[in-house]
Amino acid sequence: MARRVAIVGTGHSSFGVRLDVNIPELAYESIRQAISESGIGLDDVDLVVVGNAGGWSSEPLPAIVVNEYAGLSGKGTFRVEAACATGSAAIKAGRDAIASGEADIVLVVGVEKMNESPTPTVVEFIGRAGNYFWEFENFGITFPGYYALYATSYMFTYGAREEDLCEVAVKNHYYASFNPKAQFPRKITVEECMRSRYVAWPLKLYDSSPITDGSAAVVLASEEVAAKLTDSPVWIEAIGAASDTSNISKRGQFLGLEAARRAAREAYKKAGIEEGSIARSIDLAEVHDCFTIAEIMAYEDLGIAGRGEGYKLVREHQTYIGGLVPVNLSGGLKAKGHPIGATGVSMAVEMARQLLGRVESGRQAPIKVGRGLAHNVGGTGHYTYVTLYSLHKPRG
Amino acid sequence: MARRVAIVGTGHSSFGVRLDVNIPELAYESIRQAISESGIGLDDVDLVVVGNAGGWSSEPLPAIVVNEYAGLSGKGTFRVEAACATGSAAIKAGRDAIASGEADIVLVVGVEKMNESPTPTVVEFIGRAGNYFWEFENFGITFPGYYALYATSYMFTYGAREEDLCEVAVKNHYYASFNPKAQFPRKITVEECMRSRYVAWPLKLYDSSPITDGSAAVVLASEEVAAKLTDSPVWIEAIGAASDTSNISKRGQFLGLEAARRAAREAYKKAGIEEGSIARSIDLAEVHDCFTIAEIMAYEDLGIAGRGEGYKLVREHQTYIGGLVPVNLSGGLKAKGHPIGATGVSMAVEMARQLLGRVESGRQAPIKVGRGLAHNVGGTGHYTYVTLYSLHKPRG
Repeated sequence: MARRVAIVGTGHSSFGVRLDVNIPELAYESIRQAISESGIGLDDVDLVVVGNAGGWSSEPLPAIVVNEYAGLSGKGTFRVEAACATGSAAIKAGRDAIASGEADIVLVVGVEKMNESPTPTVVEFIGRAGNYFWEFENFGITFPGYYALYATSYMFTYGAREEDLCEVAVKNHYYASFNPKAQFPRKITVEECMRSRYVAWPLKLYDSSPITDGSAAVVLASEEVAAKLTDSPVWIEAIGAASDTSNISKRGQFLGLEAARRAAREAYKKAGIEEGSIARSIDLAEVHDCFTIAEIMAYEDLGIAGRGEGYKLVREHQTYIGGLVPVNLSGGLKAKGHPIGATGVSMAVEMARQLLGRVESGRQAPIKVGRGLAHNVGGTGHYTYVTLYSLHKPRG
Repeated sequence: MARRVAIVGTGHSSFGVRLDVNIPELAYESIRQAISESGIGLDDVDLVVVGNAGGWSSEPLPAIVVNEYAGLSGKGTFRVEAACATGSAAIKAGRDAIASGEADIVLVVGVEKMNESPTPTVVEFIGRAGNYFWEFENFGITFPGYYALYATSYMFTYGAREEDLCEVAVKNHYYASFNPKAQFPRKITVEECMRSRYVAWPLKLYDSSPITDGSAAVVLASEEVAAKLTDSPVWIEAIGAASDTSNISKRGQFLGLEAARRAAREAYKKAGIEEGSIARSIDLAEVHDCFTIAEIMAYEDLGIAGRGEGYKLVREHQTYIGGLVPVNLSGGLKAKGHPIGATGVSMAVEMARQLLGRVESGRQAPIKVGRGLAHNVGGTGHYTYVTLYSLHKPRG
């Protein structure tokens, strides 16, 4: 019988171009807040898991500099990486350490400083985040190109239009306008999005998440410890994790991410949620909208929409508050920003705060079921983590 | 009550300059062997944890290319990094996943291809593996320089000589001569070592571990699954993990690694081993001899020797077979080689094979207690993992 694990403290930095801080300073903005909110002392931490992709960083031991600056030197620690799903993988590793009985309190911090490197370096590094040798080096495909393949196939097959993609950006910018930590806290229109320049047809600049610096942190605790610390634990109910081929060319279809479907099935099974009932089983979702098409595919991969129906949810505003399932009330990767290693942890922070009714008005979901879903993808569906967070104590 | 976890399969590539293979091919050499030895099918694997430091690699998603090539696409997976202790951190993450009940079978693979990059790149990257901003960039200290500080302080304080350091290299090369997977399977003499050129006084070329390509893999299983698979499980009895300051300049002494002492204390406590009794509680140890001084400090940090007495063990050949505790019968990092992300997993493979009496004659330890110790350090004591492996089922 595994031990239950809860979030008992959260921290979140401002996302954006953060040339004012270095990596440990940026991480500490979230660590300080999460430690303070949880009411623990630094000495109480048993393990620190650091999520950081870091290919553009001059720091080869990011976990160590983060720990030193935060006053956590001495603790057991390691770094986790799963491309853009790094933060969720770090949460899984931290959760497992507590569930196994090895630790009572784990600090999970995700941090990324992408603007540290010249832009071409960052763009090339992300470009390689599929299969380097065959597809990047030999055929020149880069990251927006991968998602453009999916977008093209999806639009051709189901009849979605570029305007439908832009509707995702409009929604996410709308909610970002209520989030003071967001990189782009301002509304946009479909027309502005449609006028923005192409990055890889049919994806435009406004279909794409930005290059972001930021951090997020959660303090995780065992059931016994959580009971002493807080009256409002948010439980990690279930985690599904899956991967897919490195080479996109080895995949059978470009209409959705097979890894996301597998991860969702695993998470739902663990939580006892029946296939087809997810939309009424959650109050909200944060999904991985690195490009707008990714959010539409996520609706379908998660079972919130039927196959080929995802873009209709957007047209009908069914993923705004008041619709079927509100999605990306933080602003999403698109408008909140996407500091690679921090994103999955940022989703966890958002889930905890939303479920507890603690986010800014304008973007607070109505909480009825008491459960939220985070969907975090690394690469182009190379990794996917689907994590369910709940106000109700999960099955042990 | 955590679930017990055992090694049920092991794999190990040849270590050396492996320009004949790319990263996934190199990893597969170990994966194939570990899967085959365990008797499982690829479908039985629940999670793949990949240990890879990878700062010199052109592959930003090493876990994904490794999984694809091995036929493991689809599985939950992530990469772990803890500098040169990466492999041990990966084993911890895999162990925790099983102990928590999240997984029944986990494949842990460590792989590094350091010769992929030009030598200056590798040397600079390793050079940064302390504190980049202050100590590397501002003061120009590199990795051999860090250990040279420790060696100088140790020699001055305790009266050890350069010849004593060389005796470590001589021992490890001696045992490597029986290990066909070793990078340098040949004996050397103290005189040859003393004649080798200085890298950072008092450390010479023959005091230093080489730049290595290699991989190692273990299949881990829950107690229930292990019972079905094998009559000879090797249990992961206890893991201690600790870290230290990023800046070496913030440490109080240079005579040993505080993180190693902490990690050892934690592991011994979990295994119920009394302080001071470690030498008679284990049949052998693999310790992190990235430089010869590191092995001598390890004796003391682990409690195999008293403070300031480690070099005397070497003088008296007490860490050869037949002595107090045989150490680095694989050849160690020094002569077996040190492919960063693989090293901790290689230690686990060595422990399992030694405890089961399955290594080459000439380097097989007599097994009486049925327990071995692996000591794996990242950076200059920035990370340390101490892992105890046992033939006897541990306390639950």
